[in-house]
Amino acid sequence: MAIVIIRQDDKIELWKKALLAQRPELEVYSYLEDHPKEKIKMALVWKHPKGALAHYPHLELIASSGAGVDFIFEDGAAPKNLPITRVVDDMLAKDMSEHVLAVILSHLKNLDQYKINQMKGVWQPIQYHRISDFRVGILGLGALGRELATDLVKYGFKVQGWASSKKDIAGVDCYVGDEGLSDFLKTTQIAVCLLPLTQETTGILNKELFLKLPKGAFVINVARGGHLVDEDLIEMLDRGHLSGAGLDVYHQEPLPKEHPFWKHEKIQMTPHYASVSDTGSVVPQILENYDRLLSGRNLLNEVVMEKGY
Amino acid sequence: MAIVIIRQDDKIELWKKALLAQRPELEVYSYLEDHPKEKIKMALVWKHPKGALAHYPHLELIASSGAGVDFIFEDGAAPKNLPITRVVDDMLAKDMSEHVLAVILSHLKNLDQYKINQMKGVWQPIQYHRISDFRVGILGLGALGRELATDLVKYGFKVQGWASSKKDIAGVDCYVGDEGLSDFLKTTQIAVCLLPLTQETTGILNKELFLKLPKGAFVINVARGGHLVDEDLIEMLDRGHLSGAGLDVYHQEPLPKEHPFWKHEKIQMTPHYASVSDTGSVVPQILENYDRLLSGRNLLNEVVMEKGY
Repeated sequence: MAIVIIRQDDKIELWKKALLAQRPELEVYSYLEDHPKEKIKMALVWKHPKGALAHYPHLELIASSGAGVDFIFEDGAAPKNLPITRVVDDMLAKDMSEHVLAVILSHLKNLDQYKINQMKGVWQPIQYHRISDFRVGILGLGALGRELATDLVKYGFKVQGWASSKKDIAGVDCYVGDEGLSDFLKTTQIAVCLLPLTQETTGILNKELFLKLPKGAFVINVARGGHLVDEDLIEMLDRGHLSGAGLDVYHQEPLPKEHPFWKHEKIQMTPHYASVSDTGSVVPQILENYDRLLSGRNLLNEVVMEKGY
Repeated sequence: MAIVIIRQDDKIELWKKALLAQRPELEVYSYLEDHPKEKIKMALVWKHPKGALAHYPHLELIASSGAGVDFIFEDGAAPKNLPITRVVDDMLAKDMSEHVLAVILSHLKNLDQYKINQMKGVWQPIQYHRISDFRVGILGLGALGRELATDLVKYGFKVQGWASSKKDIAGVDCYVGDEGLSDFLKTTQIAVCLLPLTQETTGILNKELFLKLPKGAFVINVARGGHLVDEDLIEMLDRGHLSGAGLDVYHQEPLPKEHPFWKHEKIQMTPHYASVSDTGSVVPQILENYDRLLSGRNLLNEVVMEKGY
């Protein structure tokens, strides 16, 4: 019985070390080294190469090492009917919340424009905005959205959320489902997307949605590139309906050199790094699920197939 | 009995209107128009031309329309022995606090560097920092410093302050006077200057002080340009002792085109606009002091000459 780590970045050794640090007797392999494929029970994955999961005849669990699992669903060659788990990490939620707060404040205080001005040698005061003047609307009230909502209330923002089912969060107005979306958007001055990427939410950040936001609204996407229709965002910014956008995620990452987002002065880009799983804090729940798998108990943070997250 | 407004920006009419909106019968003049100089009892000033206060034989009060009064002390031709008042504005303190929070978060989440990278077309994730990892040290615990300290504690920062006399603020360690400065600096990772500009504090942000901060510290100056020794900051940034700086104030404003701050990638510049007196919220205390002056009562927010603020 063993675990294989499959990911295409340079963090395989980091995860291997973190797992072994907490359980030295664990049998764990990188998918790049020679390893006994028939012994693998669990694959710990993050944006694995498509098809890489098909090589394990006795695989019983696909564990995402982050909050997202969309890349697993996108792999048509992944074994069907296996349980999939994801990570629910308090630090991940806190980091995301702080990142979004930083982007919002940068917008309110014009720091992004001031940086552009500095690089051009332009001294130009711009009227700033106040926290108390803004209503933030969060699309998605899962673990990340809930943490953000709670923090923003504490910081003095007016906060509302939109979710597929009613959520109860102190100080946060909750709108539900398709029938609640228009009312939610009408009063959202800063829209933050923290939805899971599913068939229903792919392309949800489009012209139709943007036009329901009040003029001058600001849009933040920290979920997945697939939520956003890039050309709709650019059109809405250029027409002046939206005042700006903060993006951490893209259809293709790294974002191709020729993509218009790079040069757009109203777009504040970060390189998909708002919130990164900290191996030390995540390893215990990975190991716990491995133990549960081997002893046939219910898994933690198992993905509900029908919902897609 | 009349008031004259003396300032060199384009806000004279704005202030005049704001005063008249709250008291239509008031006699108030711009110093640029023809006006009866012998009737002037109070001058409402902001960075007035030096010498402009000497033309009023019956002037009884010099009222700053902002929190600072340093520009009055710097005018050698201003009448001596007149009372000077300044503005204490809750909104001013709140705005300043939000601005400093925005700059701190921008630093923690590398937004400034990401903007530079975006303009250069560079995709480069950079490890971010967390609010809970940082101890902010505030130099100056007056109205502005106190508000900032209180807010930062609420947001989850560790906070300490340095002041000329002991201040009691919940959750904030207070260091006092020359003897407390070194200990204060030793544990300050983000230093925020909110001191009044006096003989004692001019040039306080210098190499000697910076070297007492831990390596990698970040410095924010939102007080006055005169607090900072510009070339010492640049040396400390270039040697890598400081990780960056956020500046809103400068020796000369607008900052001259040839000044090295413009091109320095570790300096985040804003054009002296962190916090701007809102005429509507400030006019009542200006009018209150005018009434007190005319009826011989004690003035509000009078400057203590010996302290220089």
